[in-house]
Order: sequence, then C-alpha cells, then structure tokens
Amino acid sequence: MSIVVQKFGGSSVADAESVKRVAQRIVEYRQAGHEVVVVVSAMGDSTDDLIDLAQQVSPLPPARELDMLLTAGERISMAVLAMAIANLGFEAQSFTGSQAGVITDEQFGKARIIDVTPGRIRSALDDGNIAIVAGFQGVSQTAKNITTLGRGGSDTTAVALAAALGADVCEIYTDVDGVFTADPRIVSTARKIDEIGFEEMMEMAASGAKVLMLRCVEYARRYNVPVHVRSSFSRKQGTWVTDSAIPEAFLPARSAKAAESETESTMEQAIISGVAHDRSEAKVTIVGVPDIPGKAAEIFKTIAAQEIDIDMIVQNISTREPGKTDISFTLPKTDGSKAIEALDSAKAKIGFDQVRYDDQIGKLSVVGAGMRSHPGVTATLFEALSDAQVNIDMISTSEIRISVVTRADLLDDAVRAAHAAYGLDTEDNEAVVYGGTGR
Amino acid sequence: MSIVVQKFGGSSVADAESVKRVAQRIVEYRQAGHEVVVVVSAMGDSTDDLIDLAQQVSPLPPARELDMLLTAGERISMAVLAMAIANLGFEAQSFTGSQAGVITDEQFGKARIIDVTPGRIRSALDDGNIAIVAGFQGVSQTAKNITTLGRGGSDTTAVALAAALGADVCEIYTDVDGVFTADPRIVSTARKIDEIGFEEMMEMAASGAKVLMLRCVEYARRYNVPVHVRSSFSRKQGTWVTDSAIPEAFLPARSAKAAESETESTMEQAIISGVAHDRSEAKVTIVGVPDIPGKAAEIFKTIAAQEIDIDMIVQNISTREPGKTDISFTLPKTDGSKAIEALDSAKAKIGFDQVRYDDQIGKLSVVGAGMRSHPGVTATLFEALSDAQVNIDMISTSEIRISVVTRADLLDDAVRAAHAAYGLDTEDNEAVVYGGTGR
Repeated sequence: MSIVVQKFGGSSVADAESVKRVAQRIVEYRQAGHEVVVVVSAMGDSTDDLIDLAQQVSPLPPARELDMLLTAGERISMAVLAMAIANLGFEAQSFTGSQAGVITDEQFGKARIIDVTPGRIRSALDDGNIAIVAGFQGVSQTAKNITTLGRGGSDTTAVALAAALGADVCEIYTDVDGVFTADPRIVSTARKIDEIGFEEMMEMAASGAKVLMLRCVEYARRYNVPVHVRSSFSRKQGTWVTDSAIPEAFLPARSAKAAESETESTMEQAIISGVAHDRSEAKVTIVGVPDIPGKAAEIFKTIAAQEIDIDMIVQNISTREPGKTDISFTLPKTDGSKAIEALDSAKAKIGFDQVRYDDQIGKLSVVGAGMRSHPGVTATLFEALSDAQVNIDMISTSEIRISVVTRADLLDDAVRAAHAAYGLDTEDNEAVVYGGTGR
Repeated sequence: MSIVVQKFGGSSVADAESVKRVAQRIVEYRQAGHEVVVVVSAMGDSTDDLIDLAQQVSPLPPARELDMLLTAGERISMAVLAMAIANLGFEAQSFTGSQAGVITDEQFGKARIIDVTPGRIRSALDDGNIAIVAGFQGVSQTAKNITTLGRGGSDTTAVALAAALGADVCEIYTDVDGVFTADPRIVSTARKIDEIGFEEMMEMAASGAKVLMLRCVEYARRYNVPVHVRSSFSRKQGTWVTDSAIPEAFLPARSAKAAESETESTMEQAIISGVAHDRSEAKVTIVGVPDIPGKAAEIFKTIAAQEIDIDMIVQNISTREPGKTDISFTLPKTDGSKAIEALDSAKAKIGFDQVRYDDQIGKLSVVGAGMRSHPGVTATLFEALSDAQVNIDMISTSEIRISVVTRADLLDDAVRAAHAAYGLDTEDNEAVVYGGTGR
C-alpha cells in the first residue's frame, strides 16, 4: 500500500462546493487502495479576513496572538473537509499541526519545522482513516506555543509530513497545470515542464517561479520526496519534481509511443528547464566605497543587522575616482527603506560617498542543469537580450543558473527573447546546440 | 493579590469595537492589582455561521469534526481579545482549552470537565500576563481529541478555572444586569436579586432561569466559587451567587446607611428568591398502566434508553378503571417524538392503554431557601393562581422549590400572580408573613 500526501491550497477549498469536489478527489485515491494524508490551507480569503480583524483591534498585533488567530483558518477548512469526506462514506479525521506532530522553532509568523512526529497520523491511517492535517502551522518545541510557517507554509507542511511518513509522493494541488518554462501570462508559447530535478526547481523557485516555494523544494530535496505539482481543476499530469524515476503507480497508463516521445521531450528539457522572472526586488548602489579590505563586510553587516536578505551582489572598480569602488546589490522592495535608513546612518563610519536606490528593475533567470556541460548558454542569453534591445544592468551566475537585472519595463521582452532563444517555445521544440567560447 | 476570573459571552465580543471595550474593562482589573484570567466565547454569531458551513457539506457531520470546527470560534475571539489588551499596553496571552488544561471526557458536543490542570495559566499570571482562555472547549483525557462542552460551556469553563486557580471571584458578564426575581419581559416589576445561595440558584437554573446554566452553578457550589453575574454594558453590581460573604474587595464603596438597607433587602429575599418559568417542556401522559409493581420502572427504562432527561413525574390512581393507573411526566419538547415512538413500540409489552402528548404547557417554579421554615408557601401559591384563574395540571416540590404545570397561554399570568403574591414586586417590598396549615 502506498502513501500519498495531497496538499490543497485555499483556492481549491474556497467554499462548500469546492470542498465537496476536493473530497471526491481524495476519496478516489483511497478507493484506489492508497493511504491518504491531506494537508489543507485556510478556505479562500479567510486568512486575509482574519488579518483584517486583527488590524481592527491592534495596528501591530503581538506575533504570538496573530499566529494563534491565523491557525483558526486551517482548523475550519480541515474539519469541514473531514465532514465532506465522511459524507461520502469514508472515515476521515482532522488534526491540527500540533496534533500531527509538526514541531517548529519559536519564530512566530515564519517558524521553521525542526521535527515531525506523525504518530497520530500513522495511527489514523492504521485505523483506515483518511487523515486531514492543517497546513501552515505547528507547535513550538520548548514553549509549546502555536506557530505559523509563513508564506508557502502549507506546501512545506505537506512535504515534511510526506518525508516523515515515507510517502511515495507528495501532490501539491494548485490553480495552474504545473511548473512552466516561463510565466504563460508573459510567454504565450510557454510549455508545462513534465519533470524537473530538485536543484533546478530550487533555482526556479529562488528566481521568482511562484508555483512552489523555495523552502518546500529544499525540504523535498533533503528527504528525497517526489513532488507532483498539478491542477485541482483537471486530471492532467502536472510537473514532477524529483531526481528519481516517477513512481509507476502514479503515472497514467500510456502507449509505448507516448512513452518514447516523453523521453525525448525530457532530454530536450535537460539543457534549460525554464526562464523565471522576479519583479519584487530593488537595487541599491553604494557609490564611492573606499577600496580597502573590510569595507564590503561593514556594509553587509549593516544590512544583515536589519534582517534583510540580499540577493545579487556586484562590485566594480569606480571609474570616476581611483581608490574607490561601487557596490550594488538587490533586495526585496519591501525592505528598501529600512536598508537605506541603515546605510545612511552608517555612512560616516563606512566612508562611502552616496547611496542610490532603484526599484524599477526586473530580474530574469535562466535555469537548467544542462548548463554545466554546455558552455554556450550565457552567450546565447546575452545575444538574445541584445537582439531584443534589452540592456543588462547586473549579472550573477551559479552552476545551473544565470540571472540578469534589466529595466523593469523591458523584463517581459527579455523573458520572451530568452525563452525563444533556448528553444523552449511550444512551436519550436528542437534543442539548441551549444558550442563556442565559454558560457 | 486576588485572582479574578471573568467570562465574556459572544454578545460582549460581537465585533472589533466590543472587543476593545471589553479589553478596557479587563485592563482596569489588572490596574487595580488583581491577577486576571478571562474566559471568552466565540464572537457574536460566529458559532452559528460555522454550523451553517458544516451543514453545507454534510447533513450529519461527525461529532469529532464538528467539535474541531466549532472550537475555531473561540480561538479567533481569544486571540483578538489578547491583541486588543496588548494594544492598551498590557501583556496578554491566549490559551486554547487544551493549553489551559481543561480535561474532559470523550463525549463530543457535550463533554464534561473531569479535571483542570491550569499550569500554563498559572505561569502566565506569574509572568505578569493577563491570561485569555477559550471557553466551551477542552481536550479529552485518553484520546486527546478536541471536545466542546455544549450549552453554557463557557460559563462552566470560567467556574472550573476559577476553582482550579483558587480565584476569589468568577465574574460572568452577560447582556442583563443579573438574576431577576422573574423574567422582566413578563413581570415588569421584577427586581434584580443582589445575592442568592448556590442551592436556590441551582433550582432557579433548573427551573428555566436562563442567565446561568445549571451545570455551571453545580460546579461553583461543589468548589465554593463565588460567582458574580453582571452586565457587560454597565458598571452596576449584578447578582452574587454564593453561600459565603461577598469578598469586600469586589464590593463598591458604600455608605453605612446603604449597607444597612441592603442587609434588610437581603433578609426579605431569604424567603423566596424568585419565580422561574420554562416553556421548553412537553407533557406525556400514559393512560391505563396496570397498577402492578415494576410497570413504572419499565416505562422510565424505555425513556432512559433514548437518553431523554425527564423532569416532573406524577402518578395517580386511574379514576376510570380499577387496577389501572395514569402516569404523567414532562420532558424537553425536542425529545417529544422520540419518546412517543419508543413508548408506542413498547406498548404491548408494558400493557398500557394509550399515550397522550401535550406540548402546550408551561412550568412555573417558586424557589427560595426560606421555604423550608415557612409552611404557608405552597398555600400562597395555590391561592394566587386560583385568584388569577390559572388551573394547575401537575405539581412537584423539593425542599426549596415548588413547581406547577399550567396551560402555556396562562403561564405569564401565573408568573405575575406568583411574583406579586410573594411580595417580590418592586413597589411592594414588604415580606409576606407566612403561617397556617402545612405547605
């Protein structure tokens, strides 16, 4: 008997009718002989409604109480889903994060899972139940306070439970068909990715692909949990995120010919998985930093003290003044003013000339494990962007990713150009052959 | 430092504004130097909304899941109340029933509290916090399932916590000024009772006075917790339910003259506390029961097997047929059809002639510890009802209560007549002197 963990987001359980539809889908898996654990988010916009309510009594509600409040959302959806399943004649029991053994640290609002002890879930399965678990929440290890996991928390709950239970697959149901080679709203010819490795998916998520959150993929990779991202509105196969073979039991029956063509398509995709983009960042440039050891460290310690995560960093010798250098980095727009304030008050101590802030930027990332062995990938990107008249502001690379910062208003053009250049468009399925100098 | 437990019902925390008002009131107690524990119900009609939602997915939702669902209501109100208190600059922490140590049996929907282990509440108080506790809910002792306590559950939570913490007083905030000598909607001259003993309050609650639930008063009596029932919309003293002296710290400052007149008023009230009424019952009459030992037992075992609580029982020799008897009893209207079905199917076995059912009845009860030593109380009631042209259907008495069943449409007249006859009307504060033959 295989174990399936299924996660349904808020839009999949927005109202009573959707809950019933989801219940039907869950029950089919039970009927097929699987042990089923379901992780569910709060219904529709109910989390936003709770946040509104909190704002009405307090502009800055205490984090502990906000977490206590928000966890009511999943408590409602999980109980209602269990009822809907029971109404179809199947046994279901709901469990809070705490009851499901989701143990976290003490960071309210963005707690990290430090252990999962799913004894009660295992017992519920042994008793023939479908187990429904509240996503997004846990209980802190020492103080036993209720915590929430922050954005993408329910996905992480699902993967963490799948890992702890040794599940065969973790299905993430969402409102799109899977992970795409680019955002279909920008690139009309974008294709659904059938299969992608953990590392590439991590780079895609880190680069702005919103279907899966980075921490969820990280968790899946660490515990080698195959993740299947798919639509809750169709029966189509979605995107498998795994480094191993897809478990046969969860693939639809198909002809040998279809299997063969799928293999081909997978080989093509091996070079470049997709093109991600991100509009949520801003660029800070610190002009005229004395070019002596320790200055960069001072700057980034100043930023880190504000608990701001920075992304790309570029340093260049200043062209205007000898002995000085310019340092640029990107950070979430939401942290922009905090960073500027901190840098301004450290200006005299660090001794730079000025700070510039630009929130009209966009980041484009090309991700693919195939990059490692195909040196021409970078040149292809630069050529494509140049042909599309897109100027590059910053560049940063990893083993399987190239990211560039462009003007915000050129980002869509850049994404389309890159998507086409790597042969990812639906009409043009042939792999680009790379060669030439460097990447 | 004294400990105060305060309970606020759903109407006191119906929206953000009410929550803020309640927070202000709570904070005043903290400022006065008390340790404060607050028990709170779900906001406004939110419990009904959750029941509606459950009905939309399942006509008969599993009890475990319904309890899981309903407990979300208090989770919301308690967190929001804690936020509102924090916003006034005081430390507050909310706790679920489970976290507060409210241990119950396994009966979903009507669990009984079997233990209270308020270790976390005590710690929160020691740390200078105001503790906010979810009413109406607990966790079952063996299976660790979330349970709800049923009607009046939040009052019971408050009294149980007050007992476990050794609180000086348990304040029950409600939308009326306290317990009245009769329902003011029926008897315009009804007065607020300043002080009443546990036993009398239990009889009042059992007889239909809705301000406090019977089980809550039972709990308070068992652990000798002084209960102060009062309005959340005014600062006036309400009704103290206690067998001991009212703690001085919780009485308003008053002149010696006022104190003297209060003592007088308390003496008057000692004879009859009030007149309660109940429209929720129906009467079942079993006609022609063979007058042989064991038949009554058979009848009431049949009823008990349906888990129906019966109230008054009257048995008379049948006037129509020798060797037969008639048995009447009252029961909640909601259990009427279940009882009739059970009796019909046992008719042949028990051997009675027929069952009659009447749901157009009302019950009036006169309650007062003073009855014990004043033999004329019953005669006064019968005379008053007779003067008011109210016929009596059934009679039942206890040490400190007389109950009669009348026609439903005469109940209001009966209540007014009794209230006046015992000198409870506001305009006529003189005690009636009893004497004469028996009661």
